[in-house]
Amino acid sequence: MIIRYSREEMVKNWSDENRFKIWFDIELFALEAMESIGSVESGTSKIIKEKSKDIVFNVNRINEIERETHHDVIAFLTHLSEIVGSKNARFIHQGMTSSDILDTCLSVQLSKAADLLINDLDVLLKNLKDKAYEFKLTPTIGRSHGIHAEPTTFGLKMAQAYAEFERAKERLIFAKKDISTCALSGSVGTFANIDPRVEEYVAKKLGLNYEPISTQVIPRDRHAMFFSTLGVIAGSLERLATEIRHLQRTEVGEVSEFFSKGQKGSSSMPHKRNPVLTENITGLSRIVRGMVNPALENIALWHERDISHSSVERVIGPDSTITLDFAINRLSNVIEKLVVYPDKMLTNINSLGGLIYSQRILLELTQKGISREESYALVQKNAAEAWDGDKTFKDLIMNDIDIKKVLKEEELTKLFSLNYHLSFVETIFERVFNGNN
Amino acid sequence: MIIRYSREEMVKNWSDENRFKIWFDIELFALEAMESIGSVESGTSKIIKEKSKDIVFNVNRINEIERETHHDVIAFLTHLSEIVGSKNARFIHQGMTSSDILDTCLSVQLSKAADLLINDLDVLLKNLKDKAYEFKLTPTIGRSHGIHAEPTTFGLKMAQAYAEFERAKERLIFAKKDISTCALSGSVGTFANIDPRVEEYVAKKLGLNYEPISTQVIPRDRHAMFFSTLGVIAGSLERLATEIRHLQRTEVGEVSEFFSKGQKGSSSMPHKRNPVLTENITGLSRIVRGMVNPALENIALWHERDISHSSVERVIGPDSTITLDFAINRLSNVIEKLVVYPDKMLTNINSLGGLIYSQRILLELTQKGISREESYALVQKNAAEAWDGDKTFKDLIMNDIDIKKVLKEEELTKLFSLNYHLSFVETIFERVFNGNN
Amino acid sequence: MIIRYSREEMVKNWSDENRFKIWFDIELFALEAMESIGSVESGTSKIIKEKSKDIVFNVNRINEIERETHHDVIAFLTHLSEIVGSKNARFIHQGMTSSDILDTCLSVQLSKAADLLINDLDVLLKNLKDKAYEFKLTPTIGRSHGIHAEPTTFGLKMAQAYAEFERAKERLIFAKKDISTCALSGSVGTFANIDPRVEEYVAKKLGLNYEPISTQVIPRDRHAMFFSTLGVIAGSLERLATEIRHLQRTEVGEVSEFFSKGQKGSSSMPHKRNPVLTENITGLSRIVRGMVNPALENIALWHERDISHSSVERVIGPDSTITLDFAINRLSNVIEKLVVYPDKMLTNINSLGGLIYSQRILLELTQKGISREESYALVQKNAAEAWDGDKTFKDLIMNDIDIKKVLKEEELTKLFSLNYHLSFVETIFERVFNGNN
Amino acid sequence: MIIRYSREEMVKNWSDENRFKIWFDIELFALEAMESIGSVESGTSKIIKEKSKDIVFNVNRINEIERETHHDVIAFLTHLSEIVGSKNARFIHQGMTSSDILDTCLSVQLSKAADLLINDLDVLLKNLKDKAYEFKLTPTIGRSHGIHAEPTTFGLKMAQAYAEFERAKERLIFAKKDISTCALSGSVGTFANIDPRVEEYVAKKLGLNYEPISTQVIPRDRHAMFFSTLGVIAGSLERLATEIRHLQRTEVGEVSEFFSKGQKGSSSMPHKRNPVLTENITGLSRIVRGMVNPALENIALWHERDISHSSVERVIGPDSTITLDFAINRLSNVIEKLVVYPDKMLTNINSLGGLIYSQRILLELTQKGISREESYALVQKNAAEAWDGDKTFKDLIMNDIDIKKVLKEEELTKLFSLNYHLSFVETIFERVFNGNN
Repeated sequence: MIIRYSREEMVKNWSDENRFKIWFDIELFALEAMESIGSVESGTSKIIKEKSKDIVFNVNRINEIERETHHDVIAFLTHLSEIVGSKNARFIHQGMTSSDILDTCLSVQLSKAADLLINDLDVLLKNLKDKAYEFKLTPTIGRSHGIHAEPTTFGLKMAQAYAEFERAKERLIFAKKDISTCALSGSVGTFANIDPRVEEYVAKKLGLNYEPISTQVIPRDRHAMFFSTLGVIAGSLERLATEIRHLQRTEVGEVSEFFSKGQKGSSSMPHKRNPVLTENITGLSRIVRGMVNPALENIALWHERDISHSSVERVIGPDSTITLDFAINRLSNVIEKLVVYPDKMLTNINSLGGLIYSQRILLELTQKGISREESYALVQKNAAEAWDGDKTFKDLIMNDIDIKKVLKEEELTKLFSLNYHLSFVETIFERVFNGNN
Repeated sequence: MIIRYSREEMVKNWSDENRFKIWFDIELFALEAMESIGSVESGTSKIIKEKSKDIVFNVNRINEIERETHHDVIAFLTHLSEIVGSKNARFIHQGMTSSDILDTCLSVQLSKAADLLINDLDVLLKNLKDKAYEFKLTPTIGRSHGIHAEPTTFGLKMAQAYAEFERAKERLIFAKKDISTCALSGSVGTFANIDPRVEEYVAKKLGLNYEPISTQVIPRDRHAMFFSTLGVIAGSLERLATEIRHLQRTEVGEVSEFFSKGQKGSSSMPHKRNPVLTENITGLSRIVRGMVNPALENIALWHERDISHSSVERVIGPDSTITLDFAINRLSNVIEKLVVYPDKMLTNINSLGGLIYSQRILLELTQKGISREESYALVQKNAAEAWDGDKTFKDLIMNDIDIKKVLKEEELTKLFSLNYHLSFVETIFERVFNGNN
Repeated sequence: MIIRYSREEMVKNWSDENRFKIWFDIELFALEAMESIGSVESGTSKIIKEKSKDIVFNVNRINEIERETHHDVIAFLTHLSEIVGSKNARFIHQGMTSSDILDTCLSVQLSKAADLLINDLDVLLKNLKDKAYEFKLTPTIGRSHGIHAEPTTFGLKMAQAYAEFERAKERLIFAKKDISTCALSGSVGTFANIDPRVEEYVAKKLGLNYEPISTQVIPRDRHAMFFSTLGVIAGSLERLATEIRHLQRTEVGEVSEFFSKGQKGSSSMPHKRNPVLTENITGLSRIVRGMVNPALENIALWHERDISHSSVERVIGPDSTITLDFAINRLSNVIEKLVVYPDKMLTNINSLGGLIYSQRILLELTQKGISREESYALVQKNAAEAWDGDKTFKDLIMNDIDIKKVLKEEELTKLFSLNYHLSFVETIFERVFNGNN
Repeated sequence: MIIRYSREEMVKNWSDENRFKIWFDIELFALEAMESIGSVESGTSKIIKEKSKDIVFNVNRINEIERETHHDVIAFLTHLSEIVGSKNARFIHQGMTSSDILDTCLSVQLSKAADLLINDLDVLLKNLKDKAYEFKLTPTIGRSHGIHAEPTTFGLKMAQAYAEFERAKERLIFAKKDISTCALSGSVGTFANIDPRVEEYVAKKLGLNYEPISTQVIPRDRHAMFFSTLGVIAGSLERLATEIRHLQRTEVGEVSEFFSKGQKGSSSMPHKRNPVLTENITGLSRIVRGMVNPALENIALWHERDISHSSVERVIGPDSTITLDFAINRLSNVIEKLVVYPDKMLTNINSLGGLIYSQRILLELTQKGISREESYALVQKNAAEAWDGDKTFKDLIMNDIDIKKVLKEEELTKLFSLNYHLSFVETIFERVFNGNN
């Protein structure tokens, strides 16, 4: 985790303090459940609760104990015992294994992380929608292969991103369900020493489902699905970031990241205004995607469990959620403050002298009964000449003898029309924003 | 694609013939729609349909044309024009782009592939369920870290895998929805030259949703999600395969892959019976997971589209679905014919002289009022002695003076009980197989 | 392997025919060695050699036998026995294991693949060098963050790529050594049934090193290093391909892939000329990089060996080398036929009205005794005004009162100089092409 | 970076303090060079040197400035200016860009990291060699597919690992060269404002090569190669870790990680002694390998440079080297203190009743003139009977009528010999440890 790429709430979610707090909650809820089914002396949980009111765990002390025992949960329990007294502590963790605590805690943290990420996406969606409506009918050239194709609008670009991040949100909700699961099933998951009702109770208190079958650990296909989903979302972030980087290129100049007062673009070249935020998001996306593979390799644990997944999760649990949280927010800000240059968009549209209307001419020729192949050849010939020479495509078309045979001057003029390409913007917006699909 | 790791139906799904057939369907359905909204001369689709009855596309001829035009869809359309006559063909593909055909076709193929994979999972699930019930109460040692922990049953192992592959199926159904989408939106996706109703009609005919907003191409986050899901499923295959490989180890000997008559395990060592099928599945899993990254990198296309995704998909479209289809089936077969050795399982359970009951002693001591720490130390001391010396753990415990102070001989004897660990098998089976969760 | 992305010689290297030919060579060389050390009846190898003169293995027959034995090497040996007679065949493969044949064969194939790839790089290097010298002093704008920075030359761009691919070649030579290794060490690699001298002899005949210690298989860290190196080279291909895609953008227009007669850029938009070859290379690069992970996972085989690596290598052995071979060649062609537009480069350089000389003004101000911070502020102020307003940077600078205090008009004019930026091109070329570094 | 998986010296290498120290060195060396060629006032570097004697940079102050300027190098230079006085500072960084500092600094850090890792490998190699010689002739069963194959020695296992990590070291040395490169080439790398001799001087002072051609940044194929190499080494760590995990399995019991006094294996099962260190190394290996992909994606920067690589390197620069450093050391310790059980190895060898000698019988039969196919069938029949029934393979072979026809009892007895398999241990050791290869 790199501080510069992190936000406070997500970092707190992964703090030692929060982790110990969740461990304690799990132990306490488990005690409550055991009491209610009679497997623990009545009143125990109440005493523990009182003794540990406003408890803040001494992380250093726990670490100290761990250095001796080489076992973090035992260190925690020992410290807890120091606080509540060993007599009161004796039913704590009864019939449970470390994994019951660790895995359920991870579920709580990932689940919380998912909530934060969903909130992030909501903000991004709002900003995209705002921009989409603001520039709904602002014409801009659509590009395929980086080459001018046909006009579209800047609002449609934003609407596309909106639809993509709605999918991202849906996927995250689905993936959250996958990791919102609680296991308190004891050694190798047989419940031999802990009643399944304890698991059911604790799950409910924590807002999780209970794991139908665990093997001491929660199966790691769940986590792999979660981290893979983060990877896909990171890919979508990169797509939008790449779009902005392209549009901010000197030669394109259609949008620009907000450039704050006092900001320096380059230590050596004072004139530079660089799309550094979206470039940064591109890099952050690589980081998040890099964590997919370790997560996938974590699935195939040996037999009922091995601990190889643990170090991986200590890294990718915090790092991928913290990085993604930061990246989504950064992108939200970029979109919110994006500087858009509609005039430059229009200039670019017109820069090819009408070439971008080639398809329309082609279609009109076929409508007039000329075969597709002939029409294509006719249009391509003029396009090539325009591309390589000095005359504009429009001029060439208007003066092409073969074309003039079938299309009159006023018919031809009408074909070079920008508005023609915007006819269905409304329909698409209906689909995207009003769910008419 | 490697023939030896493929199955016929999935291979057919990706054949040139099938692809051209789907392209034709899309073009024909589009024509029908255009006719119905009046943008194409009435009767056109009927003529095309008749002319192309029982059409089988000449793959060689299409490839020949492509070598000249460097463009596969144009090659196809040219060949189609040769079949139905250029006059009849002139409305075909009107207002459409190659991507409309290519992307929608890919959706049809991926969607079909998903169906085949779901069927595969159904067979695997059935086999796992059968084995789970057959060995529901067959005791076997549960292992954490590869070390004997506490008893479980072989049925529970199978039930765990069942639950995992049910999740796999659910994920696949979710991912299938993501790629079941049709786009016929024309250049840069504005519908300038094609009415959105055409897209809606074709989508319906093909059993797909229509893409709310496309940019000439269907957004690649959808495909990335699909291939990532396949990666996660591959990880689950590896987990189960690894379990079997472990259990077939010479020293463990609890299960064995079926070894067919005439099979040779090793060219040099005639005695060998190796778990080669599950080892193979492990490798196949790596292959499928290796395709996740390219799919993730495919998301960030430039502007409205670039063609960099295409070569990737030509490879991973077929290869990841064909490989996964083969691997699931191979695993289904392994499970179906799995040779299980319950006697060896029991021998292994007993091999540690009662050590595996250490937790139960520990818990009973705490129940008798001894602190957790003391109890732990007491049990661990005897365990260490058993581990390093000649006496069994059970003997040591039965003769430990401190323990005998609080637990009588008959109480102690009862703690070394296998059945104790099987008490909740029924509950877990209820959860897994009857959805009581 | 996708035919459309393959070249003949590399495909042949991976053909069944070639594989069986290599297997035969290994068996024959091994026989020769065994004869020479007296462990096989004298004359055997000569008979086998005669019997199998001009042998072409019947792939179908071998596959047929394999379907029964489930073992490819045994199938091969059985077929070989059919050809040379079982009596003559009885010493073939003596003391060897399948892996001896399979792994050594893979080394021969990978080694050959490396040679082909090195040749590919040589051609690419030649084309890059030609272009570098042709455009050595052709000014073009250097861009950081996609934003105009300062001038450079197109020759320098090519020279950078040259240096990068020289490193690629060096790495490939290093990686080739890693996989050029022969193992004929028998079961679990102890040479119990085969003399180490046989391995040494066969290695020499095949132009390989012998593996100092194998465990029936050649260790897979070697292959992982090889495939990782291919991944790095693929990354370099993507870098150069990306450069060209950028430069061909409509707004940039500085270079263009060759567009052949009859080629169609778009089925719908006849005017399009798209950088499809470099986009394709970008995708192919993803494919090759996707194979790095499976190769890395292949390293950790169980004990002396398991067969999980095999299916992976059946795929990535051919696929990554065939794809890379194709991609390098495609890029070589693109470079060779690249259409370069020096005029457009100059137009682009001048498009920012002198802004790109901002650093030079900054440095001159500090030379005149103004502090770095003040100088930066002074230049940035004018740059911002030029960026946002109508006046050019040059005009603003020439009329800035504070600047005019320290720099005279003729001094200032000289600072807006293109040639200034080209002073060290020669030095760099010396370093890159004459190894003066 | 996770503190628990880190070692002090490597962490220090990546500290802010060290980074600023290196930045300062670069600036100072550059000043010295500029003075010596007359482009900076004589005496400047001396003054700076004095003013900054024993300098410790105030990380907080630099961060404070960065929050305003959004630029780390400018923040550093501003702070440096505060220390040495703005007048003295005015030649610092002259003609340089941030990347000159950042990239060269990264080279220094990666180069130092490589040295530390090489030292780590040296310790591991020493420990492996010690264990190899200690158990040179300690027989243990060789396993293919997890199934007993033929005998080998534990020393050979260690020797194999030794050879593998020697390759790892060689690769690291090669990869270190790749990133030991210095660039001070100014904006877009043309040296327009900085003489190439400055770069050459600074490179020499820092013990680096100078980059023949840079584009403001050092090309990222170098870093990709470095991180890929770390990935391969991580794979080798996993291989050895996996071996130990396997050998420590309850059923195998041939080795054990050292289990320290006071250590607790399981919070619930006091008897457990788990191979947690090697499981941990397995996980750490996944982490390091997960960083290969982001490094590969970093290669294709846009034009002369973009900043997307930066965030990736801030993470993977420290994290992959810190993690690998820790993992190698952990593995060294595991090897050094490894508890080995030669008796259990022998017990395991004998557990299959002679089956592991099947190849030897097979070969002897062919020597006696029986065809390979017949011999194989003969041996396999007895092996299958031994596998499935109660009689040992040896008993069955000694009583097989067909075999007894060609092999006498005393001949047969001699074939069941352990020593036979150890004949070439010496030869292999010569190859591995005395470089006789």
